[in-house]
Amino acid sequence: MALTFDRAAVEKIVRDVVRDFRRDKTASCDDGVASPLKVNVSARHIHLCPKDFETLFGKGARLTSFRPLYQEGHFAANETVTLIGPKSRMITGLRILGPLREHSQIELAFTDVILLGIENVPVRMSGDLEGTPGAWIMGPAGMLELKQGVIRAALHVHMNERDAARMGVAHRDLMELRVEGDAPVVFERVHVRVGPAFKLEVHMDTDEANACHLAAAKHVSLTLSKGKSNVPGDIINKGVRS
Amino acid sequence: MALTFDRAAVEKIVRDVVRDFRRDKTASCDDGVASPLKVNVSARHIHLCPKDFETLFGKGARLTSFRPLYQEGHFAANETVTLIGPKSRMITGLRILGPLREHSQIELAFTDVILLGIENVPVRMSGDLEGTPGAWIMGPAGMLELKQGVIRAALHVHMNERDAARMGVAHRDLMELRVEGDAPVVFERVHVRVGPAFKLEVHMDTDEANACHLAAAKHVSLTLSKGKSNVPGDIINKGVRS
Repeated sequence: MALTFDRAAVEKIVRDVVRDFRRDKTASCDDGVASPLKVNVSARHIHLCPKDFETLFGKGARLTSFRPLYQEGHFAANETVTLIGPKSRMITGLRILGPLREHSQIELAFTDVILLGIENVPVRMSGDLEGTPGAWIMGPAGMLELKQGVIRAALHVHMNERDAARMGVAHRDLMELRVEGDAPVVFERVHVRVGPAFKLEVHMDTDEANACHLAAAKHVSLTLSKGKSNVPGDIINKGVRS
Repeated sequence: MALTFDRAAVEKIVRDVVRDFRRDKTASCDDGVASPLKVNVSARHIHLCPKDFETLFGKGARLTSFRPLYQEGHFAANETVTLIGPKSRMITGLRILGPLREHSQIELAFTDVILLGIENVPVRMSGDLEGTPGAWIMGPAGMLELKQGVIRAALHVHMNERDAARMGVAHRDLMELRVEGDAPVVFERVHVRVGPAFKLEVHMDTDEANACHLAAAKHVSLTLSKGKSNVPGDIINKGVRS
């Protein structure tokens, strides 16, 4: 008789074992292998696919780096676009984040969404664009209608497999982020995104950063949703712009 | 020998007794005397003193009600002003909340503060204006420089003495507000404001409302900072505008 494995069940068992192990070892959390935790703010921005970039910036145009982001290989581009909402309102200077991607996507805070008058923008993980609203985008060489792709990015934390194992979590798990300061907040749903090249970094939007006054925060910590396995961190990008 | 009382100590003992009593009675929280909890959003606004109102709107002008607010006697006025920040940026249509007050005060979300470029705006309780930044205000009849009064209002809950006693809190205590939905958040510092005419209502600003996606929240609850004495509530003013 062939033995069959339920992969998800096995993964869960392994995660639980690792998690329990970690809980017994909370004192050794700073055991030298821990990555530093950073909390960073993503102001509104756009990702473009090569085809859309060409429509907006012209044939042969290239996306150029304005400054590197904390995640290796990612950058804020010199190039920006204008986003036009349905009520004749617009946001100019919407920065492109590079490199180019498979699908175009616009990440806005709800404050931006309300300003523009775009209805029914959901809280979504990056890339999960089915059924999301679209928008018109204007660049120096052309205009295009994005049929879908406007989201409020769900609060998330990037990490590599080693950090995930250390904290006892897996891709798509949820964690909690506590921000202490003069407007202390616990964000109860932080999506875990595991990738081999990821540095340990929380990305929140400007509404979230302003709500918890991240710019003046004294301490941040990331915990399992059950409230264990404390990972203290640093705040970077203190200048929060909407 | 005359007996002397430390009023604060006595009040603390009474509060502690009431709190313990409430904790033993959590099942009877909805005992018929409980006020409904409302969570409401305060978009940016201004309060004016009579003298400043006259400067901006002219001698003999009167503040008129656009719509009543949830707190008895309070209203959003038809009259608005223009707020001018230090970087030649402005916010037009800043609504006056009535009635007129002893001191003028501007309540902005950090998103607004950053847009305007006003530096060092603190998180403060209403009326606590010492050392806060000022701004220029323009009305139909004049312009004035407010020397101080720009704050981000600290998250707070209004309540009367009966509600305070029921929950075992006093004026200036702190509570926690949990907002459950697709961006669940615990606000750990909700300032208690007790007044005889207050209805039980949490006021948050647009950054906070947008961070927790209050417009789509499924449940809100107010708890003692120790996490007991749950008071479930309703969300009103779902339209969150920055």
